[in-house]
Amino acid sequence: MRKPTMADVARHAGVSLKTVSRVVNQEPHVRASLQQRVHDSINVLGFRRNEAAARLARGATMLTLGLVMENISNEFYARLAAAVEAAAAGHEALVVFGSYEERPDKERMLIESMHARGVDALIVVPSPADHGWLAEHGGLRTVFVDRVPRGLDRADVVMLDDERGGRAATEHLLARGHRRVALVSDDEGLSSVHDRAVGYRAALREAGVAVDEGLVVRGVFEPGRVSYEVGRLLGLPDPPTAFFATNNRAAIGVLRALRERPERPAYVGFDDFALADVFSPGVTVVRYDIGRLARAAVELLLSPVREPRRVRVPVEIVARGSGELPPPWPSGQTSLKSPHVGA
Amino acid sequence: MRKPTMADVARHAGVSLKTVSRVVNQEPHVRASLQQRVHDSINVLGFRRNEAAARLARGATMLTLGLVMENISNEFYARLAAAVEAAAAGHEALVVFGSYEERPDKERMLIESMHARGVDALIVVPSPADHGWLAEHGGLRTVFVDRVPRGLDRADVVMLDDERGGRAATEHLLARGHRRVALVSDDEGLSSVHDRAVGYRAALREAGVAVDEGLVVRGVFEPGRVSYEVGRLLGLPDPPTAFFATNNRAAIGVLRALRERPERPAYVGFDDFALADVFSPGVTVVRYDIGRLARAAVELLLSPVREPRRVRVPVEIVARGSGELPPPWPSGQTSLKSPHVGA
Repeated sequence: MRKPTMADVARHAGVSLKTVSRVVNQEPHVRASLQQRVHDSINVLGFRRNEAAARLARGATMLTLGLVMENISNEFYARLAAAVEAAAAGHEALVVFGSYEERPDKERMLIESMHARGVDALIVVPSPADHGWLAEHGGLRTVFVDRVPRGLDRADVVMLDDERGGRAATEHLLARGHRRVALVSDDEGLSSVHDRAVGYRAALREAGVAVDEGLVVRGVFEPGRVSYEVGRLLGLPDPPTAFFATNNRAAIGVLRALRERPERPAYVGFDDFALADVFSPGVTVVRYDIGRLARAAVELLLSPVREPRRVRVPVEIVARGSGELPPPWPSGQTSLKSPHVGA
Repeated sequence: MRKPTMADVARHAGVSLKTVSRVVNQEPHVRASLQQRVHDSINVLGFRRNEAAARLARGATMLTLGLVMENISNEFYARLAAAVEAAAAGHEALVVFGSYEERPDKERMLIESMHARGVDALIVVPSPADHGWLAEHGGLRTVFVDRVPRGLDRADVVMLDDERGGRAATEHLLARGHRRVALVSDDEGLSSVHDRAVGYRAALREAGVAVDEGLVVRGVFEPGRVSYEVGRLLGLPDPPTAFFATNNRAAIGVLRALRERPERPAYVGFDDFALADVFSPGVTVVRYDIGRLARAAVELLLSPVREPRRVRVPVEIVARGSGELPPPWPSGQTSLKSPHVGA
C-alpha cells in the first residue's frame, strides 16, 4: 500500500493538482466548495503531506547538492554516492551525481553545467588536473573529497588517512616476515595514491628494507593491466612475496592474477569491496567508514565558510586471510623459487 | 601535460575569462589590443577550444539528461549509470544521476528537483508506485528503463527480455535434471521481477513440473535476508536442489548462504556482477548488454516523440559452473539428504 499523493487527491476530488496544492498550502482565493471537496478527498484517502513535499508544492525547491566523481562504475564511487545521499538526507537535501570518467575537460563541463542549473553546493572528487579555474567561479560552495585539488590555495578537503593506511598495510606484511613487498599503484598525481605510496616507503625504510624500484608499479588502474603486472613481477628472478594494492581495482587485479598462478603471495588492498570476505582466503584490506567521509563533507559544505579545513578520516586493517599468508621461505633467506637460490 | 583551458589563457594574457570567451567566440566590441594579447597567449599555450567548451563559453549549457535510479549502491545501477553516460557522450550530452533509495516520495522529489533545475530530459527506473502524476507534468520528456511505470498509459520503456530470461534460467536447471527449483525473488510489483517469475512458472509448467509455492520466496532483496531464506529452504524435509535468483543481490545472497552450508545446490542468477566469474564454481547468470539498454534509452529520449514504444533488450545464459551442477540424486528419486528418504 503506497501512500496517496497530491495527484491522487486531485484525481479523487476531480480538481487540478494546482488546486490541491493551494488548499494544502492554505493559499487564499480558493472557493469554499472546492476547498471542501479537496478536504473530503484528503480524509478519504488518508493523504498526509510531509514537510518536504509541502515545500516543493510551495515552489521552493529542495536544497540540492551536486556530487562530481571520477567514475561511477568503480565501486568506491557508488558507495561514496550512496553515503553522500544518506548524509544529505539528514539535512533534507537531495543529491545529484555526475561522473567525468577520468576526463578533466568533462569534469569541468559537469561542474559548469551543475552550476548553471542552480545546484546549491558541490562535493567534488577532483581529477589530477589544475582546478585554479574554480577559484574564479566564486559563489558556488565546494568541498573536495578523497584528494587535494591542484591549483587551489583555499580548499576544504575531506580525505582518508592515506599515509597511515599505506604504512599499516606494509607493516602488516612486514610483520609476517615479508621483505620483498611490491606496490601496485594508480596515478601518483592523485594525492591519495601519492600518500599511500609515501606510507609504503616509510614502513619499509623503518624496517630496514631498501625500496626496490623494480617492485613498484605506478599508473595502472585497470584490473586487466594490474593482472599483467602481477604476473610480470612474479616471473622476476627474485619475485615479490607480497603485494600492497593501493586501491580496490588494483586489489581485484591481484586477486584475478593469482587465480591463474601457482604462487600464493600475500596481499593487502586499500578500499573494501563487495564479496572481499567471500573468497578463500578472504581479502585483507585497509578499510574506513565511508559514511564518516560523506558526513564530514556534507557538514563542511553546510557549515559557515571559515579558514580552509582539512579533515582526515581514520583507516584500519581488516585481516581476512590474504594479508596473513607467510612468505614461502623463512625470513632472511632468499626465495626458494628463485633460480638464484644460494647464489 | 593537461590541456590549457580558457582560464590559463586569461591568466597568461592578464585579462578576464570573459574577455577570453568573447575573443574565442568572435564577439564584437573587444579592443584590438586585447584581442591581440589573447591570440598571442592562445598561440603560446597551444590552447584549442573544442566545440563543447565553446558552446559553454557562449552561455549555452550542454544538453543534460537526468537519470533517476532506485539505489546507486546496487551494482546494477552503477553499471547502468556508466552505460547511460557513455551513450549520452555520443550525443555530447551530460548526465546527472539521482538515487531515491527505494522511496517513492524521494523519487518524486528528485524528478521535481531535476525538472525545476532545467534538466532537459529524464531517464527513470521507476519505483513500484503510481506515476500518474508525471503525466500532469508535461513538457519534460521521459523514457523509462528496466520496468513499466504504473499509472501511465503512454510511456516509452526500454526493458530486458525478462520473461525469456526467467524461462531460460529455469530451463537450464531443468535440463540438468533438477525438479525442485526454488525461486528467490524481489518485489513482484516491479514488472521486471514479475516477468522473470512468469518465465520461471512457464518453464516448469512446460516441463510438467508443478510449481511448489513452498519453494517460491518473494519480496526479499537484501542479501542477508536472501541467505536466511536459502538456509530455510535447504532445511525443508524435501529441499530444493536448485535456485533461480531473479537479480544480482539475490544471487549474491545465495552465494553467501552456500559458504555456510554443506549442500551444493545449483543456482542461476539474473544480472551479471563483478567477480561472478572468479568464484569456484563461477556463478551462472542471465546476462545482457547494458550498453545496449542505455543506448536504446538515450536514442528514444532524443528522437522525435511518436507513439509510445517498448523496446526489449535480449538476454543470454552465461554458464560458469554454478548452474551446471547436477542434482545430488537421479531425477525422479527423492532427496538423499532428506530425513524422509524412502518414506
